[in-house]
Amino acid sequence: MSTQMPPAHPFDDDKLKEECGIFGVVGLSDAANFVALGLHALQHRGQEAGGIVSHDPDQGFNSVRRFGYVRDNFTRQSLMETLPGPLAIGHVRYSTAGAKGAAIRDVQPFFGEFSMGGAAIAHNGNITNADALRKELIERGSIFQSGSDSECIIHLMARSLQRNIPERMEDALRRVEGAFSVVAMTRTKLIGVRDPLGVRPLVLGQLGEGWVLSSETCALDIIGATFVREIAPGEMVVISEKDGVESHYPFRRQSSRFCIFEHVYFSRPDSIIGGRSVYETRHQIGVELAREAPVDADLVCPVPDSGTPAAIGYSQESGIPFAMGIIRNQYMGRTFIEPTEQIRNMGVRLKLNVNRALIEGKRVILVDDSVVRGTTSRKIKEMILDAGAAEVHFRIASPPTAWPCFYGVDTPQREKLLAATMSEEEMREHLNVDSIRFISLDGLYRAVGEAQGRDTKCPQYCDACFSGEYPVEPSDMIAKGFELKAAE
Amino acid sequence: MSTQMPPAHPFDDDKLKEECGIFGVVGLSDAANFVALGLHALQHRGQEAGGIVSHDPDQGFNSVRRFGYVRDNFTRQSLMETLPGPLAIGHVRYSTAGAKGAAIRDVQPFFGEFSMGGAAIAHNGNITNADALRKELIERGSIFQSGSDSECIIHLMARSLQRNIPERMEDALRRVEGAFSVVAMTRTKLIGVRDPLGVRPLVLGQLGEGWVLSSETCALDIIGATFVREIAPGEMVVISEKDGVESHYPFRRQSSRFCIFEHVYFSRPDSIIGGRSVYETRHQIGVELAREAPVDADLVCPVPDSGTPAAIGYSQESGIPFAMGIIRNQYMGRTFIEPTEQIRNMGVRLKLNVNRALIEGKRVILVDDSVVRGTTSRKIKEMILDAGAAEVHFRIASPPTAWPCFYGVDTPQREKLLAATMSEEEMREHLNVDSIRFISLDGLYRAVGEAQGRDTKCPQYCDACFSGEYPVEPSDMIAKGFELKAAE
Amino acid sequence: MSTQMPPAHPFDDDKLKEECGIFGVVGLSDAANFVALGLHALQHRGQEAGGIVSHDPDQGFNSVRRFGYVRDNFTRQSLMETLPGPLAIGHVRYSTAGAKGAAIRDVQPFFGEFSMGGAAIAHNGNITNADALRKELIERGSIFQSGSDSECIIHLMARSLQRNIPERMEDALRRVEGAFSVVAMTRTKLIGVRDPLGVRPLVLGQLGEGWVLSSETCALDIIGATFVREIAPGEMVVISEKDGVESHYPFRRQSSRFCIFEHVYFSRPDSIIGGRSVYETRHQIGVELAREAPVDADLVCPVPDSGTPAAIGYSQESGIPFAMGIIRNQYMGRTFIEPTEQIRNMGVRLKLNVNRALIEGKRVILVDDSVVRGTTSRKIKEMILDAGAAEVHFRIASPPTAWPCFYGVDTPQREKLLAATMSEEEMREHLNVDSIRFISLDGLYRAVGEAQGRDTKCPQYCDACFSGEYPVEPSDMIAKGFELKAAE
Amino acid sequence: MSTQMPPAHPFDDDKLKEECGIFGVVGLSDAANFVALGLHALQHRGQEAGGIVSHDPDQGFNSVRRFGYVRDNFTRQSLMETLPGPLAIGHVRYSTAGAKGAAIRDVQPFFGEFSMGGAAIAHNGNITNADALRKELIERGSIFQSGSDSECIIHLMARSLQRNIPERMEDALRRVEGAFSVVAMTRTKLIGVRDPLGVRPLVLGQLGEGWVLSSETCALDIIGATFVREIAPGEMVVISEKDGVESHYPFRRQSSRFCIFEHVYFSRPDSIIGGRSVYETRHQIGVELAREAPVDADLVCPVPDSGTPAAIGYSQESGIPFAMGIIRNQYMGRTFIEPTEQIRNMGVRLKLNVNRALIEGKRVILVDDSVVRGTTSRKIKEMILDAGAAEVHFRIASPPTAWPCFYGVDTPQREKLLAATMSEEEMREHLNVDSIRFISLDGLYRAVGEAQGRDTKCPQYCDACFSGEYPVEPSDMIAKGFELKAAE
Repeated sequence: MSTQMPPAHPFDDDKLKEECGIFGVVGLSDAANFVALGLHALQHRGQEAGGIVSHDPDQGFNSVRRFGYVRDNFTRQSLMETLPGPLAIGHVRYSTAGAKGAAIRDVQPFFGEFSMGGAAIAHNGNITNADALRKELIERGSIFQSGSDSECIIHLMARSLQRNIPERMEDALRRVEGAFSVVAMTRTKLIGVRDPLGVRPLVLGQLGEGWVLSSETCALDIIGATFVREIAPGEMVVISEKDGVESHYPFRRQSSRFCIFEHVYFSRPDSIIGGRSVYETRHQIGVELAREAPVDADLVCPVPDSGTPAAIGYSQESGIPFAMGIIRNQYMGRTFIEPTEQIRNMGVRLKLNVNRALIEGKRVILVDDSVVRGTTSRKIKEMILDAGAAEVHFRIASPPTAWPCFYGVDTPQREKLLAATMSEEEMREHLNVDSIRFISLDGLYRAVGEAQGRDTKCPQYCDACFSGEYPVEPSDMIAKGFELKAAE
Repeated sequence: MSTQMPPAHPFDDDKLKEECGIFGVVGLSDAANFVALGLHALQHRGQEAGGIVSHDPDQGFNSVRRFGYVRDNFTRQSLMETLPGPLAIGHVRYSTAGAKGAAIRDVQPFFGEFSMGGAAIAHNGNITNADALRKELIERGSIFQSGSDSECIIHLMARSLQRNIPERMEDALRRVEGAFSVVAMTRTKLIGVRDPLGVRPLVLGQLGEGWVLSSETCALDIIGATFVREIAPGEMVVISEKDGVESHYPFRRQSSRFCIFEHVYFSRPDSIIGGRSVYETRHQIGVELAREAPVDADLVCPVPDSGTPAAIGYSQESGIPFAMGIIRNQYMGRTFIEPTEQIRNMGVRLKLNVNRALIEGKRVILVDDSVVRGTTSRKIKEMILDAGAAEVHFRIASPPTAWPCFYGVDTPQREKLLAATMSEEEMREHLNVDSIRFISLDGLYRAVGEAQGRDTKCPQYCDACFSGEYPVEPSDMIAKGFELKAAE
Repeated sequence: MSTQMPPAHPFDDDKLKEECGIFGVVGLSDAANFVALGLHALQHRGQEAGGIVSHDPDQGFNSVRRFGYVRDNFTRQSLMETLPGPLAIGHVRYSTAGAKGAAIRDVQPFFGEFSMGGAAIAHNGNITNADALRKELIERGSIFQSGSDSECIIHLMARSLQRNIPERMEDALRRVEGAFSVVAMTRTKLIGVRDPLGVRPLVLGQLGEGWVLSSETCALDIIGATFVREIAPGEMVVISEKDGVESHYPFRRQSSRFCIFEHVYFSRPDSIIGGRSVYETRHQIGVELAREAPVDADLVCPVPDSGTPAAIGYSQESGIPFAMGIIRNQYMGRTFIEPTEQIRNMGVRLKLNVNRALIEGKRVILVDDSVVRGTTSRKIKEMILDAGAAEVHFRIASPPTAWPCFYGVDTPQREKLLAATMSEEEMREHLNVDSIRFISLDGLYRAVGEAQGRDTKCPQYCDACFSGEYPVEPSDMIAKGFELKAAE
Repeated sequence: MSTQMPPAHPFDDDKLKEECGIFGVVGLSDAANFVALGLHALQHRGQEAGGIVSHDPDQGFNSVRRFGYVRDNFTRQSLMETLPGPLAIGHVRYSTAGAKGAAIRDVQPFFGEFSMGGAAIAHNGNITNADALRKELIERGSIFQSGSDSECIIHLMARSLQRNIPERMEDALRRVEGAFSVVAMTRTKLIGVRDPLGVRPLVLGQLGEGWVLSSETCALDIIGATFVREIAPGEMVVISEKDGVESHYPFRRQSSRFCIFEHVYFSRPDSIIGGRSVYETRHQIGVELAREAPVDADLVCPVPDSGTPAAIGYSQESGIPFAMGIIRNQYMGRTFIEPTEQIRNMGVRLKLNVNRALIEGKRVILVDDSVVRGTTSRKIKEMILDAGAAEVHFRIASPPTAWPCFYGVDTPQREKLLAATMSEEEMREHLNVDSIRFISLDGLYRAVGEAQGRDTKCPQYCDACFSGEYPVEPSDMIAKGFELKAAE
């Protein structure tokens, strides 16, 4: 059932897209205001829609879910006044790839009324056995209201025999496979959970008497909260004004497999992961890339804005001057609604323009964060050549993206991934550039701080999109015919 | 949980309000278009919101639910194209009295995905044991998405062990108490049910190869369908393109207790109930009233628009000339949004104006359909006197409304009903008019065609709002402290 | 130049449409609130758009102009707060026939800044030499901002050499031909003018310390103002808080030619014209019609709502019972936006339904106010016959409309007027009814109070739409090829 | 008179704001589409509102003016279809400082109907004798519809005795003082004019058979047009499909005084002025600044995004590493509508965040383009210190802004300009930073290519905002009491 068409993303279809950002606050008056600010800072993790649930002792649970940017919805006083209370959680999301259409029903947080009271839950990641769970739940009489996999959790909780909500959540999450970071709330408690492998991020912060959970540290900064620590893989924290932070470990312990692509692209450069800013890591990727794949040239230019830190690193390591050869139009919003043919055809020109006077006659190194379908790379190369560049060399700050992600990231089908079907040389020919080089997987691991590179037996990160090695079996996808990489 | 404040009805709070109208079509291409037209004709039964679910063999179930008038939402081509297929049901509603706020989640039809396929259901009436059912269902793990009592039915269906949806619906409805007319649909079938007492109306129509279910016959007229028959009390019809209309009787047979207030006010005057037009019945109420409560006067004026047929009847029986002494502003819509103080204070003047030149110096009989709180009667009386009337006599086309309805009609609490606390003479003093007279209960029964008047042992209609005799025990309300009329 | 398409009036195209209502207030705090209420009461005179200009000693002139109903725009506190001050005028309008598209620029009041201060002006009527005036003004360097004829007045005022605004307005209006009632305002004065023939209405009212000008008395009632008198034909009143009402007569005196169609259809039935309510006049038209055109039948039914008073009069004079045989859908708003084909084809059924049970087998007299194109009459006749009526007799409460109006009423081109090309008998055949009869012109004059009927030498009213005798030569139209009726 | 409140710019109030961008096209089918794209590329010159007028031989002139971004309004097919034809001009604007409120009436292009046909005109700059002209025109009977100074031009044209529109425009512009670049159109001609000093930019481009006028070259790039040349100071070009480009010089010749702030901030970095990219000029400003004002530090960080090119130049000249120490939130739109108190208080944090891990313990050079009020500089300094920076050194890529601009740029009153009341050392203390240094006026002239620096007798640019030397006397402002710099 679809009720409303989602806005399209006509020009952003050549990036992997993080599907969600989550944020929760307990112990601060008008908590929903802080959640709105946190979600604004996490908007890069999900631009399609957002939702906030709050709880107030007098007015109970209240919820608002909206399509569009946080700043356009969750800032008006009249709306925020409908979300009172000292406890609130929120969520921003992309639409799921392949869905027929997005409905406001699919926007989180989800809410459920249990016999011991209500609970709301928001989720970043993907449940890899959701189809099987949904089928089982429907057979037992559950009514699903959304197309979202995350709704399984709330139904599993409803059917749990445990006496309180945190224990029901443990029950439910033990049935769930995949990658997930969760923020949830009861009438008095804020709950945070990371899956046993810790694939998706979740951090804890503190502000005055209150506690905060967030996908990234940059959202702590915006409200002035102090970063306390990362939630550990497999940890559940239950936080209340009265009792502070209690830590539980409901799952069998496993080694961490944090998503390495958070370093490459998803997280904001001013967030801190593992004690170091994402900006510095990306800068270091550029340094490693300059060592691995040097080339004689006149200028190092980033593909704005995500390629900038790596381009600076490449420039500083190589000694080739850094310059903004491509300018981004700051007024390019997310969408055009029913545009004219002529405007649709403009494509990338609407958001990028080449600095012709700078580029003309130069040998240009273009640093981009990743190549997915390769469609944007092709257009950018054309713009650079039209502007009179003498040579174009692509340097990519991630290894070739050859496998889809099933852990909460929107990736094209495998056949659409340029690196799934072409070697580096074939890509060079396909893009018709002077050279293209990707950082090696080991180089990337070194840049993120693993001096010895990747541990092939027991990789320190989830790098399935590069390696095809999936730390959690994508069982629903296998049931639909997806073929895992053959064992070597 | 509330998500969106409903529009208020600032000037219509002195009427009983039918809470719903329902309509369904099977076997006509673009069925949702016919449903939209039918709901437009039933708009008087529920002005706050409306919804349509359709099913198409290729595109499955689709649903749109919106606040506001049918004509403002369900007429646009772009919206209606999202509701394809030969099978559709729809619903218009008022908000339930006492609810904290209306949410789009509360707008019917409700949809549930069962293991044997999906079903949608829309309901006119009220389930008198809904609180108890809801409590039980939540304890067994059902997640409610709305504050609507009707959602119980879909959860009861989800938990039934029957193999097909009509049988699951029978299972569910046997657990339900109260008054209900239901239209529902599966992927291939249109289903209609009336409760065992037949309190709320439901009729069957035919158009070409298709079948239609509707709350009233006036909605058959708008699409050009032929009226076939009323669905019988306690009957369930299961209709498909292939097999036509099948009739079932899932409940224990009882004598009919149709809502007599449908004749007085709820139904449209051009609808046909029991073979006679509602207009004629109301005209006849006026005739009876003129016989029971004659008075010497110069003019008979209706309180527009609902008092008009009875006023014509009164005029024709009494020989006193009929005149439009009060003029209704045709551009008075339902609501003002955040009006200025000055405009709020205008009250009834915004929608009614007295025809001063006509009224001045005259003895005026005002015919109204009912008196609920008496607030509007008071204001109208003042307008008439301000305009210089010599005398004002109220004649009311229904007996005193002294008891709340628990069968799907929005009534004030008992204490707010003028007739619950005052005798006719006290009302006359309270309203400060020359006389006020209500039709007798027997007079009303005669007017609707019961020549012998009311059968006090076994009343032919549900008249609880006048008599306090409730044909189905309002068990949830009794649990909340409502006291039934003491046995005499 | 067009900037925005107006809403269409798909089902109201078979009536003459008054093009404007005007209202002004001086000497009441928050005058704009009173103007809003007055315009709401005058909404029947113009449903497309409305505007209000107010003046406050501190904040100067402020203006809001909007498409849509008054109640949807000019009731919100936030908007009304932008219109402060004790002096305000307002306007409601239809779009002008033949315009390529309506723009908010065309919505009155118009405002002009003169060397001695600003003035705003709103106008009901039509300037018959506007094309010539506009051409002359453009040649002399005036820049027109709208397509509205009324803008000429403000440019003529700007070029006047008089020292104050009322005198400039006199200068301007002496150049203007046609029919016009004007309300205007300076920083301290409210001004009202009727053209020398007094074709369009304008009345004066009083409320506390304040003065009110209005198109009709019904708009005095809504704000509780007392009716003082009609502004005389050719009179200009200049009203200020300080000096009260001053009366001027800037034009050569002529005999009055008030629009007789105001009695038939334009004015609201609760307005008072010439000391008698419009309702009573219409009732009397029905009486005259019953005398002129009796017929044996079972029922007299109005075409709702405008035919109702005449139908009551016909019934009372003839003794044939009055009944509401056609029911109007109260939720039928003005427009459908981009409706589906199916909904468009429903036409009149969306707003009217026949009371089948009442009509079946009966000989029915249908009383309508007028016949313009005849398209609606045809559809209504079909609905009545479909419902099984034995005979259908049309009785029309106005003479045949055979000539277009050029004095501020939207009429079709002459060829489209049914009565311009057909005799009564031809119309009967065309509509395929048992009989059709129009009231005679003399009968109409008697009904409005001229006991001797029409004075053919010097008619007491403007009846050009019936007689083709235009009291002011429509010079722009003649320049475009319109042919006056040949002298007899 | 105000009709609608404009959106506020709550966080951008510490920059000078270019008030307009203009664009015109002749000889390309659906010219308005190209104008929309050009305006999108010029959005940085005016974010509040935009307008397009087009002309089509069949459909005449059409106009759309809207508040908000170009991409949100002028991309929809349904809207663009209302702007047909091969000739169109457009405009983007900021609101004028000090205006009580913006109305759509104030949005250009302005249109006037003259006796020889219509013309539309759009204007970038400011008319310094507009008050005097307006007063004169009103006295002679012109009616102004907007508060915009530019409307004078159209009224002067209306009153000209010349026989064709280009000659009328020459007449009008000879009466006008100040800085202006104009694009205008008749039914067949596109016209471009620069004022005699050439203060504001205007360039000519070519695309296929068509011709283009634009404020900057970056807007030629977006539609793929070739840059032909800059329009010369004092030149008027009249361009038609038939006759191509004709050049006129209606004014007395003077030496060029192009606005030097276009190099510093207004123009986009990818535009070309005087044969060199603005990016390179800004880079060179950074180089000069590093030479003039070196300091020992660890990092050079730009204040994003406008400080970036100068920061890169500073880094490359000084050898101190460049880093993105401040991150801009990409989802920070222009406005919040009625935000909560908490959100309003967040201020600059909503759009900027410091990269804490990078900054901590470092001596940081912050490169910004300019200091106006100093309010943002102060907040940024606090953010940097909060993040643990050891030292903060401001380097400003323009001289101290000590005088308001009267030539089409929105500047605060002189008293509000930090540099009008403080020396560099006082600013250092006020901002409480370790050092602050501005580039010298000579240094800026060298960076823009004047190797000998500023010619004090006859400056090569308009630098009034730095020097207080106004090349055109601001006569309206002097009449209002503004005091010119005392002669030295």
